[in-house]
This record gives sequence, C-alpha cells and structure tokens, in this order.
Amino acid sequence: MDDITAEPGAGRRQRGEGRGAAARRASRSGGGAGPAMPYITRKIRTYEVLDEEGLALIEHNADVVLEEIGIEFRDDAEALELWKQAGADVRGQRVHFPKGLCRELLKTAPSEFTWHARNPERSVRIGGNATVFAPVYGSPFVRDLEGNRRYATLEDFRNFVKLAYMAPSMHSSGGTVCEPVDIPVNKRHLDMVYSHIKYSDKPFMGSVTAPERAEDSVAMAKLVFGDDFVENNCVMLNLINANSPMVFDETMLGAAKVYARHGQASVISPFILSGAMSPVTVAGTLTQILAEVLAGASFTQLIRPGAPVLFGTFAASISMQSGAPTFGTPEPALVSYGAAQLARRMGLPFRTGGSLCASKVPDAQAAHESANTLNMTLLAGANFVLHAAGWLEGGLAACYEKFMIDQDQLGMMQKMAQGVDLSDDGQAMDAIREVGPGAHYLGCAHTQANFQTAFYRSPLADNNSFEQWEIEGRKRIEDRANALCRSWLDAYEAPALDPAIDEALLAFVASRKDSMPDAFS
Amino acid sequence: MDDITAEPGAGRRQRGEGRGAAARRASRSGGGAGPAMPYITRKIRTYEVLDEEGLALIEHNADVVLEEIGIEFRDDAEALELWKQAGADVRGQRVHFPKGLCRELLKTAPSEFTWHARNPERSVRIGGNATVFAPVYGSPFVRDLEGNRRYATLEDFRNFVKLAYMAPSMHSSGGTVCEPVDIPVNKRHLDMVYSHIKYSDKPFMGSVTAPERAEDSVAMAKLVFGDDFVENNCVMLNLINANSPMVFDETMLGAAKVYARHGQASVISPFILSGAMSPVTVAGTLTQILAEVLAGASFTQLIRPGAPVLFGTFAASISMQSGAPTFGTPEPALVSYGAAQLARRMGLPFRTGGSLCASKVPDAQAAHESANTLNMTLLAGANFVLHAAGWLEGGLAACYEKFMIDQDQLGMMQKMAQGVDLSDDGQAMDAIREVGPGAHYLGCAHTQANFQTAFYRSPLADNNSFEQWEIEGRKRIEDRANALCRSWLDAYEAPALDPAIDEALLAFVASRKDSMPDAFS
Repeated sequence: MDDITAEPGAGRRQRGEGRGAAARRASRSGGGAGPAMPYITRKIRTYEVLDEEGLALIEHNADVVLEEIGIEFRDDAEALELWKQAGADVRGQRVHFPKGLCRELLKTAPSEFTWHARNPERSVRIGGNATVFAPVYGSPFVRDLEGNRRYATLEDFRNFVKLAYMAPSMHSSGGTVCEPVDIPVNKRHLDMVYSHIKYSDKPFMGSVTAPERAEDSVAMAKLVFGDDFVENNCVMLNLINANSPMVFDETMLGAAKVYARHGQASVISPFILSGAMSPVTVAGTLTQILAEVLAGASFTQLIRPGAPVLFGTFAASISMQSGAPTFGTPEPALVSYGAAQLARRMGLPFRTGGSLCASKVPDAQAAHESANTLNMTLLAGANFVLHAAGWLEGGLAACYEKFMIDQDQLGMMQKMAQGVDLSDDGQAMDAIREVGPGAHYLGCAHTQANFQTAFYRSPLADNNSFEQWEIEGRKRIEDRANALCRSWLDAYEAPALDPAIDEALLAFVASRKDSMPDAFS
Repeated sequence: MDDITAEPGAGRRQRGEGRGAAARRASRSGGGAGPAMPYITRKIRTYEVLDEEGLALIEHNADVVLEEIGIEFRDDAEALELWKQAGADVRGQRVHFPKGLCRELLKTAPSEFTWHARNPERSVRIGGNATVFAPVYGSPFVRDLEGNRRYATLEDFRNFVKLAYMAPSMHSSGGTVCEPVDIPVNKRHLDMVYSHIKYSDKPFMGSVTAPERAEDSVAMAKLVFGDDFVENNCVMLNLINANSPMVFDETMLGAAKVYARHGQASVISPFILSGAMSPVTVAGTLTQILAEVLAGASFTQLIRPGAPVLFGTFAASISMQSGAPTFGTPEPALVSYGAAQLARRMGLPFRTGGSLCASKVPDAQAAHESANTLNMTLLAGANFVLHAAGWLEGGLAACYEKFMIDQDQLGMMQKMAQGVDLSDDGQAMDAIREVGPGAHYLGCAHTQANFQTAFYRSPLADNNSFEQWEIEGRKRIEDRANALCRSWLDAYEAPALDPAIDEALLAFVASRKDSMPDAFS
C-alpha cells in the first residue's frame, strides 16, 4: 500500500503530458512557473524548543487530561460504543482514557505513507523527512486581481487550483482553496473535487463538511484511481478539526469515519487560538493539543487499524485586548515547534504552519507574519503544510497576489531544505585559488559552471537600483505579483485527463446534484 | 575589565532618569515605546546546518587558504612587520600563515565581554547566550516620513538615535545610523559620536573611516567614561570590514589598530556578496569568510592581546542575471548559520544578520527578506546584530517606517528567545481542569492572572475585522508605522547628561572642527 511508485488502476493512469507545455508557455511569458518540483526531502535538521524533560512533562500532563478530564465525542453513539469496547471509561458523551490506551491504538498508524496523485510523478510522501506544501484552505472571501474583496466563486476556486498546479514548489492541489459561495452548500463539494481532478494532477483533499460529502469524494476518487486502488492506498488527505477544547463533533467524526473506513488519511487538527480555546501558555496549549490528537488520531485506528492519520496543529493566539486572532507571533511558533517534537515521538506525520497572517492586504504585516510562520514550519519539520500560500485576514480571504508572493517563498524554503553542499564543487577551492585576493568571482570557471543553479532566483523580488525601479514605475511587490498571476492564468494549460474518466466524473456530479434540492446554509 | 556592573569613572556615572519619563509619555501617546528591555539572554537552542565533519572540512580548507593563498594587508607596513615578527611568511603585501598561527594568537581574545553604556543599566554582554540588536548602519539616503527618498542629514541621524533609544528591544544606539551628508565628511564623525552620547544612553559604536576619526571617538568616549575606564573596558564596538576576497585595506587596518590599542572591540566582518566577493557556493563562501576572519581577528591580538574582537559575517548573494545584491534568500541564511557554528568553535562572539532587504519601499518584499534574515539571526545565535531595524534598498536608505516595523519584530524575537515556560504556571493544568471540554479560557482564573504578559503584543499589527479596518481608513502597516514614528519623535525626552560632560564634549567637537578645513569627499 505504501510504495510511491504504485500506480492507479490499469488503463486509468494519467501522465502529466500537458504539464511540460504549460510550464514552457508560462516560462516564455516571463518569470513564469518553472517545472514542478518534487515534494521536499529535507536534508537539514529540525529545530527543537523542548528537551527530554519538557517533552516527558507534557506527555504526562496530557495523559492526566485524557484520564481525569476526558474528551467529548459529541452526538455520535457509534463512536462512544467503539470507545467502550476499546476499554475507555465513557460517561455520557465524555470519554476517559486509561493511561496508554491511545498510544497503544496508534501503534497501527503508519509513520510515513504515500499520498497518491493521478499523475504518479506528482505523488508525495507524508512523514519522515518529507515536507509537502498545500494552498490556502477554507476562505469564504477572495481578494481578487482588481483589488476587490468579495465572496469567492467557483471560478476563483478553479483559478487557485490552476495557480497551485503551476507553482513549482506547491506539491499538492489542496482542498477547499476557497469556498465557492455561488454553488449551493450541499453541492459545492462535487464541483470542488471535480476541479481538483480536472485542472490539476497534484494530490488533493476530500470534503469533510458532512459524511455523505466525504462518501461522494471517495466515489469520485474511485472513478479516477479505481476501487481497489483507493481502498488500499491514500489518495486523499482530509482535514479533521477538533472543536477545542477537548471536543470532537458529529460532523468531523462523521467525515473521519468515512475516510478511515476507506483507508484515506485524516489530519487530526486541534484548531487553537491560545487564550480562548487553550490556556494562554505554550506548555498548557501543547498539553491540550497532545491530549486532543491522541484521542482523535487513535479513534481513526478504532475504525480501521492502519488508516493513515496525521498529528495536526493549527496554532495562533488571540489578542487579549480585542479577542482577535493574531499570527506570526512568538508563542504559536513555540507551540508548533513543540508539537512537532511530540508528533515525532509519537511516530505520526505532522501538520502545522503555513503562511498565516491577520493583515487585510498583502503588505509588510502580512509578510512578516507569514514569514515568521513559514520559517518555523520548515525548521519544525512539518510534513504537511496547509495554507502555504494565499492566506489573508486570518483565513477569511484567499488573495491572488499573496498566493504569488507566498509561492515564491515556498521555493526559497525548498532550496533552504537542501542544506549545505559539501562536495568538491561545493567547497569551491579551485575557485578560491583561481581568483585570489582582491579580484572577483564573476567570471571564474567555477562561477560560470554553477551560476544557473547556485542561488534561488525570485521571480518577484526587485533587486535593481532605486533609479531603475523608478523608471519601471515604482512598483511594489504586490503589483508585480498581480502581473505575474495574470500571466500564469493566461498561460495555464490543463493536464491531460482520460476523456472516459472526465465523462464519468461529470455524470456522477450531475447525478448527485439532481438527487438533492439546493441548500445555501 | 569584564564585569557588567562595573561603572564608568567616579562622578561621571549617568543614571537614565529621563528614560522612565520618556517611556511614560510615549506610552500615554498610544502604542508607544515600552520600557527598555535588557539585552537578550537566549534560553533557546541554536540551529545548526553543519555537522562535525562539515565543520572540520571547512576549517581545514580555510587553513589551506591562509597558508597557500594568503591574505593581503595592504599599504600598512606596520601590519606586515608585525606579521613577520609573529612568524608569518610575508611576500610583498601578501601574508601566508603557518597552520595554527591565527588560532594560537586568538587564544587571548575574550569569548565574552561587556560593552558598557554611559547608563550602566544599558550595558550589554557580547558573546555566549547574549544577543544585542543595533540599528541600520551606513545609509547615505533616508526614506523620510513624507515618503521622500533623499540624502540623509544630521537631523535624520539624531532622529534614528532617538528612535533606537526609545525602541524597547533595541539594545544599542548603533554607529553610523545614517550618513549625515550635510556635514563635511572629515567632521561628521564628531557630530555622530556626540549625538549618540547626547540623545541616548545605550552603548554606541565608534568611527572607522580614518585612524584619526577613531582616535577622536576614543577621546570623546574618555570625556564620558574617564581615561582609565576606557583603556580597561569596552565602551565602543567598531565595524572593521574585510575587503573580500582576502584583503584588508589601509583604512580599516588603521581604525582596527587604534581601537585594539585602546582595548576597544573590533567586529571583523567580511562583507560578502556571494558570486562576486566569494564563490557561488555556501561551503566555499564559509571557507573564505573563516580565513579572512582568522587573519583579521588575530591581527587585533598582535596589536593588543586581550582586545575584544568579534567574528563578523555580512552575507548576501548577487543576482547572477543582473549583478544586483539579493537578500533574505536561502543561501546567505545557510552561510550565516554555518559561520555562527564556526565562530562558536573558535570561541569568538559572532555578528551577523539583521533586517536586510533589497526592496525600495517597506512592502511585503522588504518584510519577507527581513524576516527570513531576522529569524535566522536569532536561531543562529548571533551575539551582535547590526542593521536590525530600518534597512532598505540593500542598505542605501535608512527608512523611518521600516525602522518602526522592524523594531516591533525585534520585540517578537526577544520574546521568542525566552523559550517555553515549564513552571506550574506555564503548564496551566489548573486552567485545563477549570475550563474542561467545550468551554473557553477567556475568563478563567489562570488567563486573568497571565494575560498581560502571556503574548507578545504588537503595536503595529492590525488584527481587527475587515469591516473595522475599513472604518479606520484601510491603513497599511507602513501608514500605522508612520504615525507611531511621529508620536515617538514627539514624545522623545533626552536621558540626563552631566552638563560638565556635555560642555567638554561640545568644546572638543568645536576644537577639532576648527582644526580642519571642510572636506566633502
């Protein structure tokens, strides 16, 4: 089940033929999308903020929370019955876990697995030294290329799928890249899953807003990958938020059960705004996160032992003055670093971070908050990174310009992750000997041989002189991002998709839509 | 010589009485400067990108560079003579160092020392787990509060000194915070040193642009601290750039000699734009930096054994397309992380990083590049950080708005450096027990007791709703930074300065100015 070279069902395998052409066309249009990069295999160390004593203390405290306080599994009789059978002490909807129960159950969860794309070249590893970036998730609004902030539409959704497809260091197509508010709420998952399959060949996420929508997502995946392949391989990662503090609700449990039964991955993510949903301290927040993840992740193993599951963490704080969420500050970074360590000790792949910010525009606030979060994300060793590009306003808006700026930063993180080249070529002693004191390296043989790949090249940073920048119209980075975004969308070419699969998907979508009245809330 | 509580000469000790009043006034004006923070004592680990093998390889290669290729000490007969006497092989202006010579000489250099301020409460440690932030250095232009980019003046210089004095997490007054181009080039050091002493009580840097200007800086310091105190304590840190590759020039050597003779600190800093002044690779650049620092730092010990000296690194790359310098990219971050490791192994305090960027305006480009650099700076364990706030355009312009944005980020770094509180209060088990599943922490006793200090509070980030932000005029962070900067400058109050010292300083400045004709180049 776990070989990255495994290929979807015979006769249905899709090559990404269109990809090369799209990349070339975008590249010709100037500063365009380069070739798609494989997922990141980190050659650099992880950064750690807790020592053994601190980790053991938090693990102990989480065990106390699980046993003494317990976690609620709300309005799901099946879940409560499963916990009873597993040996938990269930009182009402509150589950109290004997010490060690959750960890014992989690022994069947894989520490690494492959998340398959319909184009096998785009399949990614989740866990270990792998890092996978995915776009913004869940925004009801967009900030569009005309500078308007408005409700998102299906066209926006498709645009973000296209941009994620073209961004070299975006390794996944993501999930709800924005909420297509123009489509009825009970039907939009069909258009979303279809758009991911149609407009990209990178791995995508399933719908989690209702069990039947999760079932639809699985059914559509089966039309692409084949029944057996889906039942035996992960083709969808699915975001299961805890209702912190210490609650899993019916909706999320319903989706988690569907995905686990079909062997698909759950990302168990306490959604934490410290000070509101968790204590105002880092260690207290980590304790609660660990308890919640232990309960939620082990629940997936009750459903199907071996189902892939991630230790997720969404960490932010609230302003103690206004109650508003804040991002990119030190405390959530410490929480995420610590959670990453706890996840590694637990042997589960880890999700955190992204390019988070509270700003309403892609200004320096947005960038500082995003960069503080993203640098931490890389060094923490996050395996799966939602919201890696396009996130604005605490996630309320998906922003085209910020998507472009962020995806450039993802390229930098990908290069950073390669670490220091200590080969003879990296050591460059020939160059130092050739150049000598007082000369320069621009023309030396070593520079000539290496300059194409030596440095990460940003398509958006303006490094020219002030005078040149003035002549070119005193553009800010968001102006350049706007132009680059337009050129990418112009140059976009869809990856090939077997017409028979396309037809089957469209028929499924039509049939499911026909079976339901429109619902808008 | 090395006790942080040591105080400048009797009768000359200055208390920062004005400080509290200024802070209170700024605070009353809204979002103002808080109380000055002490220098950072890092409780978090350093991040490392090289293992033992890599470090040993680079050290070996640097030894080869020192012995085989050598370093030029240009137009300084005294320096060459000193190297001959020390056992080096001097051929023309090129010095070849027998293996181990530089490291042997550096055994007398302190691994930590105190950089004294005229207000002892503002004295800082340099080395070990200490991190000290200093403002932008050397910009001929400013980007002012009216949005104009123009040559800097003495008034700008004083303004940046005042802002650095008021910024809570700026631990030093810096040096050439901008070039006061309206003052003759041969006299402006007098106004600069005087301004640091008059308008701040944080530790400052001396002039390095000519040996006689270094002597003037020492003479003025003696008027404040007393002769003996200066000769036996570090009261000035001084920036000595190598002329990379592998050259120290007459000017820098002249200043280094003056400062070392008086026991003042030199920051030996290869100024590296990789690809031009060093190889295009990280390991090659590290090798050259290490060789240059070994030569330059050990030279200070030839002048006066025991003189404080720092391992400095200014790391950037050039665009291989345009030749322009680029900042905040992965390769210079790897260089700085590696250099920090080499410095720690050498037992020298380390300088790198800051808030570097190439952008012409304080936009998202400026912020991403600055944040990438600053996050690295903290985690690398840099001891002294020049350009920590205000740097724009690759250092060509000092920007008021960016200064304000950056100093906010410095506050975040200072908080981050405190790491995770694992005390009972940090663990917050009482809070988790009190709140329980499904409730919130806003009103619980633990939150009420801790919310004032729990989270870093940015005076500039807008975390409000989109609607509130619209009502407040759709301001970008640079608009808010502009307003905050104006309020700080309005609220500024100078720290107390003994009138006798002030008079002596003014008389010295007048006398020195009278002794020279004006020079403008």
